[in-house]
This record gives sequence, structure tokens and C-alpha cells, in this order.
Amino acid sequence: MPPILDDYSRIARDLEVDAVALVPGPNFTRALGHSFMSHERPFLAVIPAEGRPAAIVPNLEMRSWDLVGFDGDVHDWRDQSGYMDAFHALARSHPMRRLAVEGQVMRVFVHHALKAAMPALEIIDAEREISGLRMIKTAGDVAALEAAIAISERALAQVLAGVRPGQSEAAIEQALIRALFAEGADGLAFGPIVAAGDNSARPHAHARAEYAVQPGDALLLDFGARKHGFCADITRTVFVGHADDEAREVYDTVLRANLKGFDITRPGVTAHQIDDAVTGVLEASPYADRIRTKTGHGLGRDVHEAPYIMRGNHMPLPAGTVYTNEPGLYASGAFGVRIEDDVLITADGCRSLTTFPKDLTIVGG
Amino acid sequence: MPPILDDYSRIARDLEVDAVALVPGPNFTRALGHSFMSHERPFLAVIPAEGRPAAIVPNLEMRSWDLVGFDGDVHDWRDQSGYMDAFHALARSHPMRRLAVEGQVMRVFVHHALKAAMPALEIIDAEREISGLRMIKTAGDVAALEAAIAISERALAQVLAGVRPGQSEAAIEQALIRALFAEGADGLAFGPIVAAGDNSARPHAHARAEYAVQPGDALLLDFGARKHGFCADITRTVFVGHADDEAREVYDTVLRANLKGFDITRPGVTAHQIDDAVTGVLEASPYADRIRTKTGHGLGRDVHEAPYIMRGNHMPLPAGTVYTNEPGLYASGAFGVRIEDDVLITADGCRSLTTFPKDLTIVGG
Repeated sequence: MPPILDDYSRIARDLEVDAVALVPGPNFTRALGHSFMSHERPFLAVIPAEGRPAAIVPNLEMRSWDLVGFDGDVHDWRDQSGYMDAFHALARSHPMRRLAVEGQVMRVFVHHALKAAMPALEIIDAEREISGLRMIKTAGDVAALEAAIAISERALAQVLAGVRPGQSEAAIEQALIRALFAEGADGLAFGPIVAAGDNSARPHAHARAEYAVQPGDALLLDFGARKHGFCADITRTVFVGHADDEAREVYDTVLRANLKGFDITRPGVTAHQIDDAVTGVLEASPYADRIRTKTGHGLGRDVHEAPYIMRGNHMPLPAGTVYTNEPGLYASGAFGVRIEDDVLITADGCRSLTTFPKDLTIVGG
Repeated sequence: MPPILDDYSRIARDLEVDAVALVPGPNFTRALGHSFMSHERPFLAVIPAEGRPAAIVPNLEMRSWDLVGFDGDVHDWRDQSGYMDAFHALARSHPMRRLAVEGQVMRVFVHHALKAAMPALEIIDAEREISGLRMIKTAGDVAALEAAIAISERALAQVLAGVRPGQSEAAIEQALIRALFAEGADGLAFGPIVAAGDNSARPHAHARAEYAVQPGDALLLDFGARKHGFCADITRTVFVGHADDEAREVYDTVLRANLKGFDITRPGVTAHQIDDAVTGVLEASPYADRIRTKTGHGLGRDVHEAPYIMRGNHMPLPAGTVYTNEPGLYASGAFGVRIEDDVLITADGCRSLTTFPKDLTIVGG
């Protein structure tokens, strides 16, 4: 068994389950070294606590599957005859009583197919343990993140230089997407958020074709390129033409919260401690009622992954962790400000992978 | 209750379940008129057979949720306190014994949260019925598909004009992605497939940075823009410099299969009949051992959706259905050919939404 698959066997032993099952997605890509489409066809790698792995593979993927060099039992299936025979074959080759799965990746139809083939099977959500293997980034992972971030920051600089009052949010979003691909993105980490004025107060706003940005608007851009399978995630909030006193105070508050996150991040800090410190700055301000979100989330092959930077998560964070530090204040119907950096925990502290300036910026003047 | 939600109540009554649950994705967008992110936060709309709907909404989405104008019980939850209280509140406001879900969209962690709050709940996979509501396209849906296809075809024309021997598959893929966004794509329907030579024999190939296209190579491009929430999906296979006799015969066989699909498509045809006719052309050729896939799939908000065009699927297809007609022949280690059109079933026959020429084409000459 390749050494990387042994990571999953170890989880199976730790959780006292018979095996770990992976479906296409970031863990599958990490484990097998190749990415696959998922869609409507069940596709499953099963790594047992002990012994030989198994896979259920759609037949049309078999020529791509050959590239994996998988040393295990492969149960392939064709569209015409359906997938249940492959699940029954898995039940025979790998009888199981308890199976750990990625709860945030596996969909219900695969869960149902497993239960149909093995009615007594207990399916355990081991999202935390399985995806947790991706928490400590390798040097290669960090290089891919830095490449994705560099593309994102070059695109942002171009787009901000071109913002003018009267442009729609949707037009600015389109300019951003084009710039990301022109700068070398393989894809988008997620659908960008480009929101001005009252829309910036929605943490997950959609760009509006019918709203033209106006002098005095906050303009929030939250986006990221995907490169070599890794996701950038950066937010900057700028102001169009001018920023009034309240906007400046709110911006300064959010920036102080963001900087506080860097102050306290070092190996061994807990997610709780980071969120408590960052959110604490917001809570101590006159704008505490504008808090809507936790401080951030892990970042890697998934744009949202472990660790989740929130109070109550007492997980100590080791060197190699990358998380988003993204405090924000959102005044419904008025405006929102968020400043988001991607932070790498280093051997003796932390380093921001994002380097785009955070001074209050006026655009379109 | 808005009329569109009544579609889901009717499914609940037909299936004799208490309610239908939707999670963010294409059905959720259709039902509620707004799209939402999913990621790690449970987000659920519950439409009962009778009575008032309910929703579980992450608190940070509440300002976006206001735009939906949802007339029902909303159980919101915050990251800091977790989501289980919202599931328990749902169990109290909407006690249920049987719940129909989208098996291909809902993930296991939501399934587990539902079962944790309602241990006796029976969760039924109603993917077919729920997503089936999207099978008959409205005029607006078709207009969005046509917009996505027009962007895709303009991008394809540009890219093919620029192909030269010595370019890598990855460079051609990058040119294609940039052209799609330059032409106005909102996003990609899926990660494009750009595969030459032996790689074109893998139905879901990945573009290789290290392989330069050579004279005589088949070059397969399978991709689509996303526009207004709808997906294009088109494949053309061209040849670099020249095509030998075998390549021409294989191409002609695949083209005849594709054209056969148009011949027999009219309202009431079954998915089985289409696949049988199209695949029958391939089977009657000397290349029957190169068949790897069914004929195609429905197309709309999802790039793969009902109806699946395969033998054994005896569903009669009504006017308004859009499906992909994509026969292919794949010789492992040598080359593959696929030709894919997007077909709309009309009142009296069918119409290809894709209009890109299908004559055998030599590029880079």
C-alpha cells in the first residue's frame, strides 16, 4: 500500500472502524494523486484498517483510473447495468460492519447504495479526521497556494485600477473573472463576491447587474483563483470616491481585528483563541451588533476546510496550518467591511500569504 | 405558498412522505429563485405535503435570505452555537416520519443531522422526482442555454483557429478558458477536457502540460460556459495537420451515430430508444469494442441531470427536454472521437441548440 494510503488505514484503526471510504473531491485527490469527476456516478475508494484496498469505479473512468496505479480490488460498473452489482461485490470482497466516510463530501445516494448492499453497516462521519490530514500543508501545497494568491492579487490590482462610479457590480465581477484567467488561474476557488453599498452588508452577496456603484459606496471583493488544485481566498473592501467618518471608523476597527489575529498566531494557538481575540476587538467597538461571522476557516484544496476559526474549537493549530483571517462588520441596509488574509502558521509565528495592501483605499476617484 | 413550491408539495403527496427537503444547488435555486453557497454549513428548505414550509438557514445568510421572501418557519443558527438546535427546532415545528431528499445533492452530514434530531425519520432518495421538475425547460431556460452555447461556440472557433503543432494540451485548455470568459461566460459548466492523441481515448481526460500536440493527433475538446445559471456542454474532435484513413472512418461512424440521434428524437421517444439507435450505429461498425459510454444526459442548471440517455431508461421524453447527444469511440492507447450536441425536443421533432459545424476538420495546418 502506498505510504499516503496508510494515513487512512491509521484513521480506520484509530476510529475502530473496518475502513475509510473516499469519494471524488479533495481527499480523494490527495490520496490517489489524480482528480476525478463525480456527478451522477458512484465512485469510491475504500481503505481498510488492515489489508488490501478496494474501489468502485465507473467503467468509463477505467482508462483514467489506470494512471492511479491502484493496487487493490477494483469493482467497475457500466451505466447500462447500473452500480448496485459493484456495491454487492464490495460487500463480498470487503465485508464491513463500520465504515468512516467524509460527511461533507459523500452524498446520500452513495450512503443509500452502501446501506442497500450492507444493511447492517454503520456509517460514521469522519469528515474531521479524514480532511484533517490536509490541515498541515506541505511545502508543495504552500507553493500552490502562493501561486493562486499571486494570480488573485495581480487581478485585484488591475480591477481596482479600473473601477469607476456608474459601473455595475456585475460588470466589476466580470472584469475580475477575466483578469483572474488572464493572470493564469486554472479555475475559480468559488463564485466571486463583488458587492457595493447595502449589498456589501450581505456576507455572501451576489453581484447585481442593475446596481451602479456610487461615490461613497463601500465596495467589497471576496474571491480567489484556483491553481494546481489549491484555492486562494482574499477579501478587500475599498471605497468609491470618498469614505465618510463612520466608514473610516468601521474600516479601522476591522483592520485592527485582522491585525490582532496575526499578533496571536503561533504554533499551538487554538482556533478558539484566535476567534476570541479577533472577535474581541470587534465586540469592544461601538459596532458589536454588526458581527455576523466567525473569524475564518482553513484553506487548501477546499476553499472552506478544517480548521474552523471559531470560539469553542479548542484544537491547537500546528505549524503548516493555513487559515483565513477575515473579520467583518455588516450594517444591514447600509454597508459592510471585511478584510481577509490567508495566514500560514510557521515554526515560530505566522506569515501572511496574502500581501495586498490593507490601508484604507479610495478607488474610482 | 408560491406556486413553484407547490410542485414540491405535490411530489411529497405523490410519494406519501411528509415533506421534501432541498439543499443549495440547482433545485434549491429553481424553487427559491436565489442561489446560495453550501460548504460546511447545513442549509435546508422543507416543503411539506400540506401546510407551511420551513427552513434551516445559517445566520450569516439571513440578509441574503430576506431576498427570497420565504413565507415559512425559519430556524437560523450561528457558527458559535452550532446547527443541531436548528434541527431540533425543525423537528418540533415540522414533526416528520418520512422525508424525501435529493440523493445526489444532499451530503451525509445533513442526513446525519436530520437523523440525530429525528431518529425514527425515514429518508428517501427522491432525486429523480425532485430534479425531474427541471426536465421540461421553460422558454427562459432555453434562452439561457442558448446564451451559454453561443459563448461556448464563439470561444471554440477562436481556439481552433489558434491551434498549432507543439502546443501543449494545457496551453490549449488555458486559451479556451480565457476565450470563454472573454466571450461573457459567468463560469465554467465543468473543468474542460482538452485531450490529444492517446489522451483523447480517456472520456474524462485531464489536459497534460507535458504533451505537445502533433500532426496526425485527434484533438478532443469537451467543455461549456455557464450563463444565467445554465450549462452548455459541447464536444468537437478535430485533427491536427492531417487525419489518416482509420481516423476518418472512426469520425464518420461517430458522426453517423450522432445524426441518428437527431433522426429519431421527437416528443414521446424514450431515452432507451435514443441510446439504442445511436449506440446501435456504433455497434454495427467495426469499432464496437471502442464503446465506453451511454449516449448522453439531460442538461440545464446541472451539466449532468435527468434524463439519462441510456438503454433501460424507458422514460418517454416530452417536448422541452434538453439532452446531450454525445456518441464516442475510444481506442485505448491510440485515440478517441466524440461529437456532442445539445438537443431540444420540440413540439414536432427536435432542434440542435449547438450549431458548430461537424464536418471533419483539420486544424493547425
